[in-house]
Amino acid sequence: MVVLMDGKKLSQKFQISLLSQTTYLKEHGIVPTLAVLVVGNDLASQIYFRSKKKLANKLGVNVHDRLLPENSSEQDIIKIIQNYNEDPLVHGILVELPLPKHLDEKKVIESISPAKDVDGFHPYNIGSLFMNDPGPIPCTPAGIMALFNEYHIQLAGKQVVIVGRSNIVGRPLAAMLLNADATVTIAHSKTVDLEEVTKKADILIVSIGQPEMITAKYIKPGAVIIDVGINRLSNGETVGDVNQNDVKKAADYLTPVPGGVGPMTSVMLMKQTIGFAAKELKI
Amino acid sequence: MVVLMDGKKLSQKFQISLLSQTTYLKEHGIVPTLAVLVVGNDLASQIYFRSKKKLANKLGVNVHDRLLPENSSEQDIIKIIQNYNEDPLVHGILVELPLPKHLDEKKVIESISPAKDVDGFHPYNIGSLFMNDPGPIPCTPAGIMALFNEYHIQLAGKQVVIVGRSNIVGRPLAAMLLNADATVTIAHSKTVDLEEVTKKADILIVSIGQPEMITAKYIKPGAVIIDVGINRLSNGETVGDVNQNDVKKAADYLTPVPGGVGPMTSVMLMKQTIGFAAKELKI
Repeated sequence: MVVLMDGKKLSQKFQISLLSQTTYLKEHGIVPTLAVLVVGNDLASQIYFRSKKKLANKLGVNVHDRLLPENSSEQDIIKIIQNYNEDPLVHGILVELPLPKHLDEKKVIESISPAKDVDGFHPYNIGSLFMNDPGPIPCTPAGIMALFNEYHIQLAGKQVVIVGRSNIVGRPLAAMLLNADATVTIAHSKTVDLEEVTKKADILIVSIGQPEMITAKYIKPGAVIIDVGINRLSNGETVGDVNQNDVKKAADYLTPVPGGVGPMTSVMLMKQTIGFAAKELKI
Repeated sequence: MVVLMDGKKLSQKFQISLLSQTTYLKEHGIVPTLAVLVVGNDLASQIYFRSKKKLANKLGVNVHDRLLPENSSEQDIIKIIQNYNEDPLVHGILVELPLPKHLDEKKVIESISPAKDVDGFHPYNIGSLFMNDPGPIPCTPAGIMALFNEYHIQLAGKQVVIVGRSNIVGRPLAAMLLNADATVTIAHSKTVDLEEVTKKADILIVSIGQPEMITAKYIKPGAVIIDVGINRLSNGETVGDVNQNDVKKAADYLTPVPGGVGPMTSVMLMKQTIGFAAKELKI
């Protein structure tokens, strides 16, 4: 029988712990504060931002939101970020992506102080992670690592295959798993004979944005399957990158969609923000 | 018949091109200049430094050398680096590693301006490479990529296995190969059943510091084998991490030791220094 790795439940467990932490911090005069910049009218950005704000409120994290017009200049945005960098009352800064096309995303992200880079996307932080000296880390991979930990999935010496090489999931997750002593393979759209590669995996992580592409024939019986995909179909249904009904029969562990990896990301963001704030505690 | 990938010959080819570049730059008033800090009495550091200096002289690269005592403070070293960062006549800066134990290597490396980081070890540069937006890159992996290019080894879609996950070879090389569309696996000392992993490799790169550990049984017939190891045996012989005589029978391509990867590293360092200097050219 497959074990469904319940990200919703684990997220709630984290929330209880985080709420107690923010309460404690506030008793010591520290209000964990996250600054969020939303530029333009991208619908997905607006939705993600509102959901983060709701969770922050619930956990006692203060949010400074700056909703900036579509035609904002790079200079204006970087100026605002620099003010947050210097503001001792702001612990974490994030910029909702994607940015409008006239803006250089990398330049904007790089203007965030690495110590306040709560998304973990600054090249300095990605480099430190890759060199096994991690500081702030990206939240989706962090959530996946928390699920492994919760379900006592051993990583050292395991064959892990990651399908998808994005900067926000596949690549940083590869670094985290390598740092955890797994043997790590990164496959992607240019991989020849994907099935042969994924069938070797004790642990298979799929983050490709292809609805239900990974079926049972791609997996090794007894594998751990992490489905990072969130694909909205025209019929309104949300499905993963894995064909869950098919894979369920062969896998030992599987993250459902929805309710697996998804709920972990924003709670890891709050965890990291609160962690930044906790550095102010003097014991 | 195995093709031996001749790093000595390729290095000489690069040297001819680089000498013409420095000559051209000097005619335009630009003298490519590399600052090298050697701290303490580590014998290997001294040897590497002298060999770099010799090559630099040959290619018309000016070297500022600072030989600092074993007991130098972090503060003193960082001060010197900061002066070089601000000196418009210095294009590249490198610190010979390892540093004496009382010094924080990461802190020292991070004080080098990323734009002058000729070794490509700054976390910002490692992060940019990992995010497929490379600036300065580490020289040993750069030399290996040059060998692939010279021998027309196709990388896209190939199964590449790297054995060894060091910050100066295995990890950055994984990023470069992933950026070149290879399917990349990183194996290491904690990998279970290494032979099973390496036998899948169309291209196998070994950087583990274990004299002649990789024999024919580890490789797929017809594979490309890159031997990064330089092991000095007690009988004075230098051997790689690959048992060359054994592997020769099965591989299609093989880097010899010595004369394969080794000669490429320092020439790539000069190439990168001269590249930094060439940015001053106004055309």
